[in-house]
Amino acid sequence: MFKFIKKSSKTPGMPPGALVHVGDKKTDVTNIQLFDYGQGKCIAKNIDNLEEIKECHKTESVTWLNITGLHDTRIIEQIGNIFSLHPLVLEDIVNTGHRPKVEEHDDYFFIVLKMLYLDKDKALCSEQVSLILGEHFLITFQEIEGDVFSAVRERIKNGKGRIRKMDCDYLAYALIDAIVDHYIHIMGEAGDQIEMVELELETDPTQQTMEKLHSIKREMLYLRKRIMPVREMLNLLIKSESPLIQEKTVVFFRDVYDHINHVIDTIETFRDLLSSMLDLYLSIVSNRMNEVMKVLTIIATIFIPITFVAGIYGMNFENMPELKWSFGYSMVWIIIGVVTGVMLIYFKRKKWL
Amino acid sequence: MFKFIKKSSKTPGMPPGALVHVGDKKTDVTNIQLFDYGQGKCIAKNIDNLEEIKECHKTESVTWLNITGLHDTRIIEQIGNIFSLHPLVLEDIVNTGHRPKVEEHDDYFFIVLKMLYLDKDKALCSEQVSLILGEHFLITFQEIEGDVFSAVRERIKNGKGRIRKMDCDYLAYALIDAIVDHYIHIMGEAGDQIEMVELELETDPTQQTMEKLHSIKREMLYLRKRIMPVREMLNLLIKSESPLIQEKTVVFFRDVYDHINHVIDTIETFRDLLSSMLDLYLSIVSNRMNEVMKVLTIIATIFIPITFVAGIYGMNFENMPELKWSFGYSMVWIIIGVVTGVMLIYFKRKKWL
Amino acid sequence: MFKFIKKSSKTPGMPPGALVHVGDKKTDVTNIQLFDYGQGKCIAKNIDNLEEIKECHKTESVTWLNITGLHDTRIIEQIGNIFSLHPLVLEDIVNTGHRPKVEEHDDYFFIVLKMLYLDKDKALCSEQVSLILGEHFLITFQEIEGDVFSAVRERIKNGKGRIRKMDCDYLAYALIDAIVDHYIHIMGEAGDQIEMVELELETDPTQQTMEKLHSIKREMLYLRKRIMPVREMLNLLIKSESPLIQEKTVVFFRDVYDHINHVIDTIETFRDLLSSMLDLYLSIVSNRMNEVMKVLTIIATIFIPITFVAGIYGMNFENMPELKWSFGYSMVWIIIGVVTGVMLIYFKRKKWL
Amino acid sequence: MFKFIKKSSKTPGMPPGALVHVGDKKTDVTNIQLFDYGQGKCIAKNIDNLEEIKECHKTESVTWLNITGLHDTRIIEQIGNIFSLHPLVLEDIVNTGHRPKVEEHDDYFFIVLKMLYLDKDKALCSEQVSLILGEHFLITFQEIEGDVFSAVRERIKNGKGRIRKMDCDYLAYALIDAIVDHYIHIMGEAGDQIEMVELELETDPTQQTMEKLHSIKREMLYLRKRIMPVREMLNLLIKSESPLIQEKTVVFFRDVYDHINHVIDTIETFRDLLSSMLDLYLSIVSNRMNEVMKVLTIIATIFIPITFVAGIYGMNFENMPELKWSFGYSMVWIIIGVVTGVMLIYFKRKKWL
Amino acid sequence: MFKFIKKSSKTPGMPPGALVHVGDKKTDVTNIQLFDYGQGKCIAKNIDNLEEIKECHKTESVTWLNITGLHDTRIIEQIGNIFSLHPLVLEDIVNTGHRPKVEEHDDYFFIVLKMLYLDKDKALCSEQVSLILGEHFLITFQEIEGDVFSAVRERIKNGKGRIRKMDCDYLAYALIDAIVDHYIHIMGEAGDQIEMVELELETDPTQQTMEKLHSIKREMLYLRKRIMPVREMLNLLIKSESPLIQEKTVVFFRDVYDHINHVIDTIETFRDLLSSMLDLYLSIVSNRMNEVMKVLTIIATIFIPITFVAGIYGMNFENMPELKWSFGYSMVWIIIGVVTGVMLIYFKRKKWL
Repeated sequence: MFKFIKKSSKTPGMPPGALVHVGDKKTDVTNIQLFDYGQGKCIAKNIDNLEEIKECHKTESVTWLNITGLHDTRIIEQIGNIFSLHPLVLEDIVNTGHRPKVEEHDDYFFIVLKMLYLDKDKALCSEQVSLILGEHFLITFQEIEGDVFSAVRERIKNGKGRIRKMDCDYLAYALIDAIVDHYIHIMGEAGDQIEMVELELETDPTQQTMEKLHSIKREMLYLRKRIMPVREMLNLLIKSESPLIQEKTVVFFRDVYDHINHVIDTIETFRDLLSSMLDLYLSIVSNRMNEVMKVLTIIATIFIPITFVAGIYGMNFENMPELKWSFGYSMVWIIIGVVTGVMLIYFKRKKWL
Repeated sequence: MFKFIKKSSKTPGMPPGALVHVGDKKTDVTNIQLFDYGQGKCIAKNIDNLEEIKECHKTESVTWLNITGLHDTRIIEQIGNIFSLHPLVLEDIVNTGHRPKVEEHDDYFFIVLKMLYLDKDKALCSEQVSLILGEHFLITFQEIEGDVFSAVRERIKNGKGRIRKMDCDYLAYALIDAIVDHYIHIMGEAGDQIEMVELELETDPTQQTMEKLHSIKREMLYLRKRIMPVREMLNLLIKSESPLIQEKTVVFFRDVYDHINHVIDTIETFRDLLSSMLDLYLSIVSNRMNEVMKVLTIIATIFIPITFVAGIYGMNFENMPELKWSFGYSMVWIIIGVVTGVMLIYFKRKKWL
Repeated sequence: MFKFIKKSSKTPGMPPGALVHVGDKKTDVTNIQLFDYGQGKCIAKNIDNLEEIKECHKTESVTWLNITGLHDTRIIEQIGNIFSLHPLVLEDIVNTGHRPKVEEHDDYFFIVLKMLYLDKDKALCSEQVSLILGEHFLITFQEIEGDVFSAVRERIKNGKGRIRKMDCDYLAYALIDAIVDHYIHIMGEAGDQIEMVELELETDPTQQTMEKLHSIKREMLYLRKRIMPVREMLNLLIKSESPLIQEKTVVFFRDVYDHINHVIDTIETFRDLLSSMLDLYLSIVSNRMNEVMKVLTIIATIFIPITFVAGIYGMNFENMPELKWSFGYSMVWIIIGVVTGVMLIYFKRKKWL
Repeated sequence: MFKFIKKSSKTPGMPPGALVHVGDKKTDVTNIQLFDYGQGKCIAKNIDNLEEIKECHKTESVTWLNITGLHDTRIIEQIGNIFSLHPLVLEDIVNTGHRPKVEEHDDYFFIVLKMLYLDKDKALCSEQVSLILGEHFLITFQEIEGDVFSAVRERIKNGKGRIRKMDCDYLAYALIDAIVDHYIHIMGEAGDQIEMVELELETDPTQQTMEKLHSIKREMLYLRKRIMPVREMLNLLIKSESPLIQEKTVVFFRDVYDHINHVIDTIETFRDLLSSMLDLYLSIVSNRMNEVMKVLTIIATIFIPITFVAGIYGMNFENMPELKWSFGYSMVWIIIGVVTGVMLIYFKRKKWL
Repeated sequence: MFKFIKKSSKTPGMPPGALVHVGDKKTDVTNIQLFDYGQGKCIAKNIDNLEEIKECHKTESVTWLNITGLHDTRIIEQIGNIFSLHPLVLEDIVNTGHRPKVEEHDDYFFIVLKMLYLDKDKALCSEQVSLILGEHFLITFQEIEGDVFSAVRERIKNGKGRIRKMDCDYLAYALIDAIVDHYIHIMGEAGDQIEMVELELETDPTQQTMEKLHSIKREMLYLRKRIMPVREMLNLLIKSESPLIQEKTVVFFRDVYDHINHVIDTIETFRDLLSSMLDLYLSIVSNRMNEVMKVLTIIATIFIPITFVAGIYGMNFENMPELKWSFGYSMVWIIIGVVTGVMLIYFKRKKWL
């Protein structure tokens, strides 16, 4: 089950910029992948020695450095030195419990957001992704090797579409867009789940239905906490007047902004829908109880009086004239018939039958 | 049943501007209709060859191109080329799961909104309508041939009223106004439904009443999600200082803005009303349960004690002096009368009778 | 019962400015009343021929034209021509389902608001009032001849107070103030109703109490929908820098603004209060149910076991030694006494008695 | 019990500035008290003839005029004339149902707020206090002679502290501060009440507990309605750039502003806390009902079957072989034992025992 | 249990700046500790005579004065004189019931916030911390000697990291950061508690579960009240253009701001989660009741009719033909079997079995 807050292994009061990896260690090896591409060329290779990068990112071509695995803080620190990143930025990269945000530094943007996806069992997973967007370079930090970015990698390699003709900011957009596309995918799945629960509500709701409702609500809260700040983040990027984000790329960021708005609208709508479904469920439970009680009441109010009549003539008094009447027994049945009839009419009137 | 989110058939990570039709294919043929009118003239024809348009939209007269059917992405792409539309605009046109919005491009506005109407079974339907408002031309994209725009077409053909004397922005207004008029119509229908449910609540509410409540609530959520962004959209149009929207047309847009505000107010009021109706329903269910329980309790508390008395004198002990008393049997009836009387007085006091 | 939305008889897609009366026809004759007053003079007469007005409103004195009855759209149109009003303004005047608003036109303000009052049966009624505030003239449109404006008319005729010395904007203020005073009056009545329901809750709440609660809540929703936009409207009037509203009148409008704020605060407080009363009511119902169940449970748990004992010795086995014991019958009574005693102690401990 | 809205005795439509006292007449005599102090001097006396004031307030020293009792509108009018107050200001002073506000007039501030205090029976009382802050004079209007201002009076007489060295704006601050201190005191009392109710909830909640909850909630609504606008009011005073409020006094007003914020935060927190307590209470009631039902069910499901067994052998058929068996009676007891045992095990498993 | 509001021992109406300690006296001795450090040096000592400070804080090096214990108002007053603090600042320092805030004075910032921590029994504790940030000096006031600041002290003594190279503003940041780190720690603990309650809800929820829910909700309200204003406070510090906060330190404050945002997001998410858990709990209780009722109803509706049958043949009428039939007794068992069978089928159909 996902956690709403990650416990920091950082002791309170530690100096800022202290590189402590917060979160589960999800991969063993830190893997560094380099893309270096321009209109004509495209180099893709794995990096072992960080010295190689030093030269690379000073060229005009787009340099994309993708780091997978955050537990090895020495590598993160080395990269921080090469690109002269602020110590707080490095601290935030390795603290995977961070809130999505954007920070504008002197010569780069620092962007944190959450990659959300469903694993094989349709369970919601969340990985933190950090982006450093500089002039001619983009560095991305991921917790594990996901397949969210693979479509973008493919597009770079193929050289199809716009991506090889554009700069780093477009690459950043393409990656964020891929992440947000996953959000929409998750919302679609959640919509299906909600529909199934609605169907259950209509046919045969049980306590399990209620538990599913709660678990989807929980999921919505989880998503909202992770997605809500992304809207603010994108808004800041769009409004920023930094030369790092070119005029022609802004229109693309605005497009992702629309998508995020759509996702947030949907989350809010789902929350309202879920609470309406809860009301429906509770009213169904109430009605069922009512029905159970009615059955009990009908049976009891018919049979208790006539059992009493039978009880009366089961008494052993010596002096009970009715017992000796020849029509006594028939009389009892008549009484029983009348009582039952009256009760049934009463219930009909009350619309209990 | 309407869906709250459309699943994108676009694979996450696909390049932006990829033309993938999202949504159900609702019509087989793509139909292109051209209106070309000015103060004196009015041409209306169906277009087969898109080459015809090329010349048309450069004249001073108003050119309205209405495309019905979005599944044939090649046609959309061709139109995009002729009017030099941004690839993202084309992507949004064919993605029918989009959020209402307006985008100001260099020489055109791109507007997306939802046409909502009730079908024959009074079920709520939603179609996406996109508008491209340029200088002297307006392009509209619809999923199916609806009759929402037919009144406007009639007005153009008749040449009555203001429409033939005004420019494209007025035509855009007229179409948006027709759509918003439908929203008001739907709200009126919803108001009728709510009134009927209120009547049911007053007379004889059942679980069906509750289900109707839930389904109207669901409808309100659906409407809010689709209508809320339209307010923001119109506000942007009114505040935009683009020459494409003339000063004299702004007052008309402000009028639609008022209507949208009215619709949104009504949606919010209905939501509050529905939740108050839910409370009423739940309290009715509670009261019914109470009444059922009271009937059971009254019958049981009267008959259980007197049945016990009858049970006592049904025992077969050899040595039971009362059985031999001549007034024993009458005594039992007196006891029963007293017990019943006491109970009835008690229930009267408790106001259960 | 009041409606939350008026169905428009206007067909969707009709041209804007089409004069279609929306709402019930509440009066048969359209009545036009003219006030023409200045510091020294005061003329009040009914108008039959609209030609008379033409000259009138061009003088320096204040001209107040009050039209009662909106169904005769030709008269409205004629007035529109004389004062050169925008077609949309005329459309809004006859559409009585409109949202309160203010529109600043070139040489006049167009104001729509709702006159709310209680009829003889204390039922809430709502009439639309539209005001056209121009230089030296004010036109008011009412659905029926109400007595809301009569106090203002009296003041004009008497010439007492400030009103004859001030301009049209002050007259507009005086009329709006009279309307808002009625809102406060209605809130006072609602406060009384709420207090009565609270008293019922304390003494003897029934399902009727709940229905009253719901109906007051409904009323609050209705009021909020009609009154909320008035605040915004007044704010716009105060902030407008139009010469039509003089500096010295603004302080009066600010005073009405305070009153509206007070009304809105009260509506919000009442809503919260009503929902707290609902909680109280539901808890009372729950407690009652609890009490009913306790009575049933106490009676049943005492008598069911002892009836069983009596049942045992009612059996007809040949071989039942107890039946022959001389103290057998007394023993049964002792058992019954013990069982009852134990039960009573148990209930005392549980605080059910 | 406090009212949420005061019914205006002013007839709707009366001219603005009409002096009609709204509210209960709480004192018989109107009492006018004058303080005239500066660094060296301090005069305190009661005023009978309003002529005396005329000269007084034109000096450089601080003149504080405190009027107690608002029903005598002639006196209010006279004061209005002397200090040339706007008619609307006078109207608002005598209308004790007014919303807290500040109005900036040409040469004075008009401030309305509510003095809240607990009377001997700890019941919440509310009096309206109006302040006119001019250059070198402050006029305060109270409904009754309260002791809220007495501490300030003492400080002026003693000449201790800062107050004699400061101007009118500081005096206004000191009075508002005294009022706000009372708000905090009331919140403290409410906090105690809530704690007592929480204790009751933990030990032995009854319907009375629920009624206390409702009454505290009611109180919170009442307080919020009266206190919320004070924040806005103080904010306007702080931001106003009028010379009437000196730079060095602003820091003091900011301090009261913090206190009001604290009070409002506490009101909101209490509201949330109360609603959580309501949930707790309702769940306790539900659990109790559950327990009652369990006792009934356990007793009934054990004894009903075994009573049936006894009933069977109470039948009088001639041909019932079991009755003649010598071990028949023992067999019945064995059956009873087995049934009871099975039921008990079932209840244990269900955790009902 | 923590209190939501501290009762002020200050009598309402007392002059502002009156030094009255509000809150519990938590320590006996007031302890003054001095840190005086720069790049090269670091002096740490306890101060007895306040005269020593006078010289100290005028040097270029960073002077940190930490006062523990606030009950001795004379010492606070003396410090106020030395650093010429505003009387209202001193009043707020000793009033430990204050709302977090920042105040910008001429040559210092006054910051109030709450140090929150869990004591040995995991109970939430709150201490007020005030900071005076001046040029080259920082004064901190604490209620008791906590260990929240000890990590910072350690860093100063070691001279490791950035702290010795930076100015007072960085020290202020480091202390606030230490406090906020504790907030995150508390949220983590709360997250664990919520998870445990969720587990209980899934397995075996009792009334205790509900009480835990309420107590966590209470805690959240308490935290929100104390933490919410810190965000606003930090925002003011970041936006302030005072030279006291250097450009290079702002980035650090922005980092704490992110952390506070994260904490507030989490509080809001937890609140929503808790209310969803409450719904789940209530539905579980309802379902249990339903199950109890079903068992009762099934047993009762099967046995009451067949007991009646047995009752009938227990009657002592002389003339009851069935009693003499040889197959009479078997017939009764057949009737019983049929009735039971019918009932069981009925319950199966209703899905009660």
